[in-house]
Amino acid sequence: MSVSITQAIRGSFFDIAATVSHPRQLPEQARYIEDGLLLLNGGKIISLQRWEEGQHQLTDAVIVTDYRGKLIVPGFVDTHIHYPQTEMIGAFGEQLLEWLQQYTFPTERQYHCPDYSAKMSAFFLHQLLSNGTTTALVFGTVHPQSVEALFSAAEVLEMRLIAGKVMMDRHAPEYLTETPEQSYDQTRELIERWHKRGRLGYALTPRFAPTSSPALLAKVQQLKTEYPDTWMHTHLSENPQEIAWVIALFPDHDGYLDVYHQYQLTGRRSVFAHCVHLAEEEWDCLHHTHSAIAFCPTSNLFLGSGLFNLQTCWDKGVKMGMGTDVGAGTTFNMLQTLGEAYKVGQLQHYKLAAYEAFYHATLGGARALDLDDHIGNFTAGKEADFVVLDPAVSALQQMRYANSRDICEKLFVLMTLGDDRNIAHTWVNGKCVWQQQKEEKAA
Amino acid sequence: MSVSITQAIRGSFFDIAATVSHPRQLPEQARYIEDGLLLLNGGKIISLQRWEEGQHQLTDAVIVTDYRGKLIVPGFVDTHIHYPQTEMIGAFGEQLLEWLQQYTFPTERQYHCPDYSAKMSAFFLHQLLSNGTTTALVFGTVHPQSVEALFSAAEVLEMRLIAGKVMMDRHAPEYLTETPEQSYDQTRELIERWHKRGRLGYALTPRFAPTSSPALLAKVQQLKTEYPDTWMHTHLSENPQEIAWVIALFPDHDGYLDVYHQYQLTGRRSVFAHCVHLAEEEWDCLHHTHSAIAFCPTSNLFLGSGLFNLQTCWDKGVKMGMGTDVGAGTTFNMLQTLGEAYKVGQLQHYKLAAYEAFYHATLGGARALDLDDHIGNFTAGKEADFVVLDPAVSALQQMRYANSRDICEKLFVLMTLGDDRNIAHTWVNGKCVWQQQKEEKAA
Repeated sequence: MSVSITQAIRGSFFDIAATVSHPRQLPEQARYIEDGLLLLNGGKIISLQRWEEGQHQLTDAVIVTDYRGKLIVPGFVDTHIHYPQTEMIGAFGEQLLEWLQQYTFPTERQYHCPDYSAKMSAFFLHQLLSNGTTTALVFGTVHPQSVEALFSAAEVLEMRLIAGKVMMDRHAPEYLTETPEQSYDQTRELIERWHKRGRLGYALTPRFAPTSSPALLAKVQQLKTEYPDTWMHTHLSENPQEIAWVIALFPDHDGYLDVYHQYQLTGRRSVFAHCVHLAEEEWDCLHHTHSAIAFCPTSNLFLGSGLFNLQTCWDKGVKMGMGTDVGAGTTFNMLQTLGEAYKVGQLQHYKLAAYEAFYHATLGGARALDLDDHIGNFTAGKEADFVVLDPAVSALQQMRYANSRDICEKLFVLMTLGDDRNIAHTWVNGKCVWQQQKEEKAA
Repeated sequence: MSVSITQAIRGSFFDIAATVSHPRQLPEQARYIEDGLLLLNGGKIISLQRWEEGQHQLTDAVIVTDYRGKLIVPGFVDTHIHYPQTEMIGAFGEQLLEWLQQYTFPTERQYHCPDYSAKMSAFFLHQLLSNGTTTALVFGTVHPQSVEALFSAAEVLEMRLIAGKVMMDRHAPEYLTETPEQSYDQTRELIERWHKRGRLGYALTPRFAPTSSPALLAKVQQLKTEYPDTWMHTHLSENPQEIAWVIALFPDHDGYLDVYHQYQLTGRRSVFAHCVHLAEEEWDCLHHTHSAIAFCPTSNLFLGSGLFNLQTCWDKGVKMGMGTDVGAGTTFNMLQTLGEAYKVGQLQHYKLAAYEAFYHATLGGARALDLDDHIGNFTAGKEADFVVLDPAVSALQQMRYANSRDICEKLFVLMTLGDDRNIAHTWVNGKCVWQQQKEEKAA
């Protein structure tokens, strides 16, 4: 072999081999190797194969990390999360617009302070890693220093993380607004410094249409033209009142999505969080423009926003990934997020099977972020981000896991009963960057 | 004082002082004592008061159990749960009727075996206690030995537990059905042996109308007449297909509830699980007959049954308690169940505040079971069932707990971010019967 093996990991592996256009294709793409061997060269995957087939490649110089008894899956991809809402997770009693005014804006104000931003960035990334999430698309606050702190911390961890400072110039407290020109200048500066630095990427981040004047949206469009390989990350059709507000604010546009679309903010690297109440032509527009959706079930339930339609998403051929949407979401944990996604499906007679759920949380999420050439499964050449799951950390899980018939059912047990206790180790770019402390583990 | 103090517990206490007819009355009934002293005489509560007021009553002979830093609340009341579905929790992909056929009936078959029933009873009660649940209304299987095992195990623990063997004579596999006469005889024998033995109670348990012939329902009615202080526990209006089936099976009745009502199975000790799709006159009938509802949010979401209407329940003056409904429910944990109840509320623009949620899980549940004279809060003379909560067992909880303004917000954090890790100790009848193992606790 021409590349040298720097790491070898033995355990059970599960991933989805290729992206699909329909969930019925997933069983044939689902790959489960009960006794597998993953070989790495630095941060890259050399191969994943059955232990008995691969072990001859190992020389005495290679130490095998033995995770037998554990289940190793690609690192989770969180396609929508607000790091400056970590400390307000689970805020009581409001739906979207009041929730922003009452809780979100005062909380985000604190990120004016670089030290506070640095402290919370470290906390936030620790939450991601301790929940097995290795890639996220992250909202900062309007303050450039919020994103500066987050990128700095993620760079040290070598995470593939995409983030951006919020852009907003109206309908928010003065302490969180800016002029379109300031927004352009500060964003541009951040892009120049952070976009494509190591594994980091920059996302243009207009909060949502209501906090964006036409002049601000024109600046976002200008930046997207100047930096076409940046991402665009915003909210869309989360809540009926929000939609009515957008229509009132932008009477010349043909609906909510059309506001973004007319400013050319749809496209392959555009990610729209929520999309709970899309009109038919909005689904079509997302499809035609290769835009993606972040489905955030715990948030949609917690804020009472509504039920995302998984069936329509497949039927319309729109890319989709999972988002926790902390702080409106109630957990950083992707297993719990998938469990809630199942419930959203059930309320609409949609059966979210475990293969599909794990696809959305890994390769599907990577595709939604246009990163499926880099992450999302164990394909040779991809970056070595993965999570080592302890499949049964409680007596109840042990019982259910033991009486599950196949890997699909075992994965379903994980997404129904699992939480952060099931995350044993998290690897980023070929290194174990987090592991469960013994005293943190349930017996 | 005439009664001697056998136990003294110091810590922060929260309960609801009295039952209410409207949630707006809850803040004035909510009782929070930051530094409190609970005095017990055996299994009974002598008093709860502020430490500085009560400490003079302590003699040297009384050892004070010091739970300072913890939050002590009345033991949780689970008004609907199936113990023989523990091992099938989180079974994939079906709504109610198919789920019964595919998963439930084959699982329940195993409870034919007394040893298996005994093993699972112990496991089940351990799950309840480790989640802070001290009272439950429990479905067995059709086999008397299932209930025999459960009562035997609960008696040792001195739990106030109500259970019954399932009664069903049709529309189920032959191995789970019986004749009305067998059902009557076996139930009668169990009532004679277990009803009002110590703290135990017996519930007549026809599974639901579709598995009950008119002859079987007549036998249930006969038993209820012969033993008027037994409970009656069944399902009602969980799923649209189920309702249509009942209407087809009982064409002479005026809807689903009317089947039970005509056999005089409504009443003060009747508990109907789910009630997701009630007609106006069914709400009225539940009110007039003083019947109660078990609201099971995780189950209703997991099976896609629908959204229980909390607002209507208050408006109609129907008693209600929380049910986990394991195994259709996805957790034994009442905190998580309350978190899901909040989401069900939010989807209907109902704000389930923490006082109300904890009321439903404690005193309200006790009232639904007609046990509010015995359990549900720290009123003098009541039985000493309570749970010692560790309010912040993770870094995220610590952050949220610290920035919560009052006890109501702190309780809300518990019901949004909490799980079994927050249960530190569970006391039943004046004794600590379960405690979190150090190695089971998150750092």
